[in-house]
Amino acid sequence: MASQFGTKVKVSIFGESHGAAIGVLVDGLPAGEAIDMDELSRFMARRAPGLGTHTTPRRDGDAVRVLAGLTGGVTNGAPFAAMIENTNTRSADYHGLMDTPRPGHADYTAYVKYGGHNDISGGGHFSGRLTAPLCIAGGITLQILARRGIRIGAHIASIHGVCDAPLDFVSPNMDALARAASRPLATLSEEAGEQMLAEIEKARAALDSVGGVIECAATGLPVGLGAPMADGVENRIAAAVFGIPAVRGIEFGAGFAAAGMTGSEHNDPFVMEDGHVRTAANRHGGVLGGITSGMPLIFRAAFKPTPSIAQEQDTVSLVEGKAAKLAVHGRHDPCIVTRAVPCVEAAAAITILDLLEEGV
Amino acid sequence: MASQFGTKVKVSIFGESHGAAIGVLVDGLPAGEAIDMDELSRFMARRAPGLGTHTTPRRDGDAVRVLAGLTGGVTNGAPFAAMIENTNTRSADYHGLMDTPRPGHADYTAYVKYGGHNDISGGGHFSGRLTAPLCIAGGITLQILARRGIRIGAHIASIHGVCDAPLDFVSPNMDALARAASRPLATLSEEAGEQMLAEIEKARAALDSVGGVIECAATGLPVGLGAPMADGVENRIAAAVFGIPAVRGIEFGAGFAAAGMTGSEHNDPFVMEDGHVRTAANRHGGVLGGITSGMPLIFRAAFKPTPSIAQEQDTVSLVEGKAAKLAVHGRHDPCIVTRAVPCVEAAAAITILDLLEEGV
Amino acid sequence: MASQFGTKVKVSIFGESHGAAIGVLVDGLPAGEAIDMDELSRFMARRAPGLGTHTTPRRDGDAVRVLAGLTGGVTNGAPFAAMIENTNTRSADYHGLMDTPRPGHADYTAYVKYGGHNDISGGGHFSGRLTAPLCIAGGITLQILARRGIRIGAHIASIHGVCDAPLDFVSPNMDALARAASRPLATLSEEAGEQMLAEIEKARAALDSVGGVIECAATGLPVGLGAPMADGVENRIAAAVFGIPAVRGIEFGAGFAAAGMTGSEHNDPFVMEDGHVRTAANRHGGVLGGITSGMPLIFRAAFKPTPSIAQEQDTVSLVEGKAAKLAVHGRHDPCIVTRAVPCVEAAAAITILDLLEEGV
Amino acid sequence: MASQFGTKVKVSIFGESHGAAIGVLVDGLPAGEAIDMDELSRFMARRAPGLGTHTTPRRDGDAVRVLAGLTGGVTNGAPFAAMIENTNTRSADYHGLMDTPRPGHADYTAYVKYGGHNDISGGGHFSGRLTAPLCIAGGITLQILARRGIRIGAHIASIHGVCDAPLDFVSPNMDALARAASRPLATLSEEAGEQMLAEIEKARAALDSVGGVIECAATGLPVGLGAPMADGVENRIAAAVFGIPAVRGIEFGAGFAAAGMTGSEHNDPFVMEDGHVRTAANRHGGVLGGITSGMPLIFRAAFKPTPSIAQEQDTVSLVEGKAAKLAVHGRHDPCIVTRAVPCVEAAAAITILDLLEEGV
Repeated sequence: MASQFGTKVKVSIFGESHGAAIGVLVDGLPAGEAIDMDELSRFMARRAPGLGTHTTPRRDGDAVRVLAGLTGGVTNGAPFAAMIENTNTRSADYHGLMDTPRPGHADYTAYVKYGGHNDISGGGHFSGRLTAPLCIAGGITLQILARRGIRIGAHIASIHGVCDAPLDFVSPNMDALARAASRPLATLSEEAGEQMLAEIEKARAALDSVGGVIECAATGLPVGLGAPMADGVENRIAAAVFGIPAVRGIEFGAGFAAAGMTGSEHNDPFVMEDGHVRTAANRHGGVLGGITSGMPLIFRAAFKPTPSIAQEQDTVSLVEGKAAKLAVHGRHDPCIVTRAVPCVEAAAAITILDLLEEGV
Repeated sequence: MASQFGTKVKVSIFGESHGAAIGVLVDGLPAGEAIDMDELSRFMARRAPGLGTHTTPRRDGDAVRVLAGLTGGVTNGAPFAAMIENTNTRSADYHGLMDTPRPGHADYTAYVKYGGHNDISGGGHFSGRLTAPLCIAGGITLQILARRGIRIGAHIASIHGVCDAPLDFVSPNMDALARAASRPLATLSEEAGEQMLAEIEKARAALDSVGGVIECAATGLPVGLGAPMADGVENRIAAAVFGIPAVRGIEFGAGFAAAGMTGSEHNDPFVMEDGHVRTAANRHGGVLGGITSGMPLIFRAAFKPTPSIAQEQDTVSLVEGKAAKLAVHGRHDPCIVTRAVPCVEAAAAITILDLLEEGV
Repeated sequence: MASQFGTKVKVSIFGESHGAAIGVLVDGLPAGEAIDMDELSRFMARRAPGLGTHTTPRRDGDAVRVLAGLTGGVTNGAPFAAMIENTNTRSADYHGLMDTPRPGHADYTAYVKYGGHNDISGGGHFSGRLTAPLCIAGGITLQILARRGIRIGAHIASIHGVCDAPLDFVSPNMDALARAASRPLATLSEEAGEQMLAEIEKARAALDSVGGVIECAATGLPVGLGAPMADGVENRIAAAVFGIPAVRGIEFGAGFAAAGMTGSEHNDPFVMEDGHVRTAANRHGGVLGGITSGMPLIFRAAFKPTPSIAQEQDTVSLVEGKAAKLAVHGRHDPCIVTRAVPCVEAAAAITILDLLEEGV
Repeated sequence: MASQFGTKVKVSIFGESHGAAIGVLVDGLPAGEAIDMDELSRFMARRAPGLGTHTTPRRDGDAVRVLAGLTGGVTNGAPFAAMIENTNTRSADYHGLMDTPRPGHADYTAYVKYGGHNDISGGGHFSGRLTAPLCIAGGITLQILARRGIRIGAHIASIHGVCDAPLDFVSPNMDALARAASRPLATLSEEAGEQMLAEIEKARAALDSVGGVIECAATGLPVGLGAPMADGVENRIAAAVFGIPAVRGIEFGAGFAAAGMTGSEHNDPFVMEDGHVRTAANRHGGVLGGITSGMPLIFRAAFKPTPSIAQEQDTVSLVEGKAAKLAVHGRHDPCIVTRAVPCVEAAAAITILDLLEEGV
């Protein structure tokens, strides 16, 4: 197991859902960067549960405690470490009870991989709660990037087929994305957000769940980040984004739609703008040959519907080796996409700072 | 630049399209594996140009010369290295001529990143020709995997909207995929292949190009490969597949379609089959929580249309800093998807052997 | 900065001497390993200050708090994280005062590297205190190795020229090394230990300090760990051991003495013992061609004298850019070698588990 | 097996002594660096055999063929690859004959690790011949470093106890080291070189061999390269230098001698010189806390005597599982130190460029 990513800026995530604490270690942050903890809290709040009826009512506070890496609130060049204490810790007798793995979850694969020693309480290290430390790393990274003129924003592009207003790939409205972040659902169109909420409520009423797509844009990137072949921008963004539980696909620029286009439709002509080379359209999503083109970086990630649903499902008893029924108790988000928006921004931010620190 | 990937089995690709040679170094192959060079040649032939009117007529032979790592045709535990001599090498006066970057290509981004020192002849290190050494590594890896009961096969799922027959995710017909590999186009349905060919010919006639989607399946994987979060199977497959030029997206199992489903539609119930835990469907694509479930691994990669088209396109003159016109000369594949099928298999095979060598 | 090492078992250390906490993250531990916290405490106590007059009187308690990676006291396959709260945290006004860098310290190099943002209080991340989290990782690793029949022990081979009794390289007395660990100074010969203590006291009285050499042995290793060239056992042990502050050299087996030998003196003849291939002597220190031979692994690390001495020393004022005088206040160990013995064992243990997890 | 090292500048070495070719891949070289192939040849000639009676008479030519990474003789940003064809290739019937492992060699450990599949002819991948590709990488790296004002030179500090004139650590005479490189033995003192040659001849006459120590200096390094703890300059230099076969120890600055000093003897006082911070002495060898201090980097590596000696030695028959006698035939260098000087420079150069590319 290696819950680590990054080349120069390395992020390592630890913790279990009901363990003592969850946290993150970030190695390789530039020194001399002031971190605004209030701004971090506001960023963290965007993924926190309990903000609306469409998310789980459990509240953890998600109070971030910095352990290392800051001196007087400024990065000191040493590894940054922070944690969130778990107030809702496991009961000892919980362990070992898992017999009927939840469909769509890692219960079964983790059981086999770790020989039954994995912490199953609340999903253990596989819990969506582990995206909180990802957001700590992402939140401080976003502050550092902002000082370098780089902005990152994401919105919910669709939930269960209900689509948000489209994002302009050439000049994404980053202010609009920032405003979207403060809405109940991070959509450009408030109306689309309301329709998505209705979709989520419908799923909840049916003891079911829904999936969706998150679209992310990053502006202000220099030309020349990344590398051809295996170390390209897409490879590295993908490697980070697939670290968010429930992601099933990722695409850049026109993405899968490019497969249905002709070259003359898909190629973005180069143009001169104020002495700079730009492209007239941005179907390439800001990356050509694995290297940033200076156009906005655009990608989308597909999230599956929450696998924990209250409906009775078919599974097996691992102990008895035969079919069994399972009804997942507790309250779960009928749609994790709503809370995953800052996670996607975090994964993008960390990877972009990593690329920046490597240099053009 | 780092044209390397893998953790235990590390693949490093070198070469420029018109340089002395292209090649690959594979570090970490298990010792004692007999490599059938004829079988490798047959695999290489699948990506070779010139097999039909739908591919470029240039023929390189792609004769693989093994430099190291085999003793008596058997892996000896030392790094494996092989190369293909370039018979079509650059003329000295070619260098430095690039003024008008091709739309959709890495010409401009490479120019900025490498300060104009990159080899532009034939695309240099960014050429699709660099997938030949990827296929060398993939071809030998496939032979090693076959001995462990693991089969990998891919087909063209669609070209410019024309779709192949669907693949059964629960029991993919690997023999059918193997037969597809010997057709002009690697499709399950010969009729679909003919329609795709017609689509490609139409693009060629219009001095245009088309994109497509390749779908890949791997069977025989044990339960427990991979890891949660940043080191999962999806992260690693994606990091390898995005190394193939022109890939714009990747998705696993139901992929982006999962975003439109409900949990009750998407969750795959566990079932017992002959004493083994399996899932009744395989929308999860063989990976749960970043870890293989023992079900077939299924993923799709989207390829953009070939950016080199003979139509006149808008671009800029980097020297003069103003708008310019460009008509790409030479003959180029109007659809690279047809030759990319073994490349996708190669990327999957290398990553899977890497995961296997790390152990469950 | 990257305070990380290891390939499969990855150790990341964080914290500053007077920050909120110091700690460690260990990624890649095998699941299912019971960790005895009392045994860990006893191991930690060996590097703790304040055990004798030869060490600094400050007491931190070094109470280890496990944050993640254990469920019911057993490794759960997820990253292990633990920390020690700093009870002696920095005063805000301390920061920025460093003007006169201490000779032999990282004050000046850190100042330049981190642009003056590094935490200078107590040495910050460069403090010897950071070996405490190294010992947490080493302590749990030693428990895991012991279950695999691997024992690791070290002793003080010399301090300021006073030598301990020699260690038998072919059959090192691991019980004797274990007993040495409970003495005031970890020596095989109690008499040598007393002479060393006298040497340390003499240095203290002279407001000075002394260096020394630590020798480490590991038994029970299988044949075949490691690799030739850059990934050999020596490379990896060295990379870990140089992570301990104050180490200036490392040598394996006969080490530097081998440079003065002939081949016929240095070569260890192979012999059969009970059906196993062994060597009659062990001047090779258990590694041939970067790969373990099955003989005990033997290495030595040289430690410089504590740079913090109470004598007045010449330095410069960075602010004024001219010569200055410095007298280091506070109490410092006149010899860090005495507390470094478990640190060397820890570095060896972590590297050996890393090699083991990679497999033969 | 992973014959790779480096973080940003990654060197991968391949080949077997009697295989088709040996070579090197260097990923991450800066683009735009002109490489003088004649200068590279002169550097390679320093490790070539057959230059005197003290080295093996076999001549390979060591003609370097560049495969990739140069366009018009200038680095193009793509991976650099080069090889040397082996003219002296293995005979098929050689394989599998190894029954009696040579004492002091990797024959036995490689046999176990690779299950007998390793190439034993001429030592295979474990041959000292593999230092030729290391020198290719080092030779081009030295040219790049020279342009940045960084000079690297090494000399034979001792052979079998005969010592060269000492090197000035504060202001090493790099011109003198360059002149030493053109002597039969790379010594500062010609007289010492003659005495060493006599020592080597004496060993040869006795069918024996001798070891020695190589000392290396690098000047012109900026302050601030490296990092504390596990990623320090010493860790990385050591990881590279132990990749040279026969190295048994490494030490920086005062090295093991520091263990016998007091702090007041060992600490280097800081002084101002022409507005720059320097140290009055350089017992710290240019590294403080893992970070370069701007003073010359100084280290020494200990080499064991050539294990291949013509005297009859005790070994075992792996097939029969009993004692056996072995006399190593063929001609071998009675002292490999003489040819290892450029290898040490190469390992240092590559690591320093790697550190430079990471940035201060």
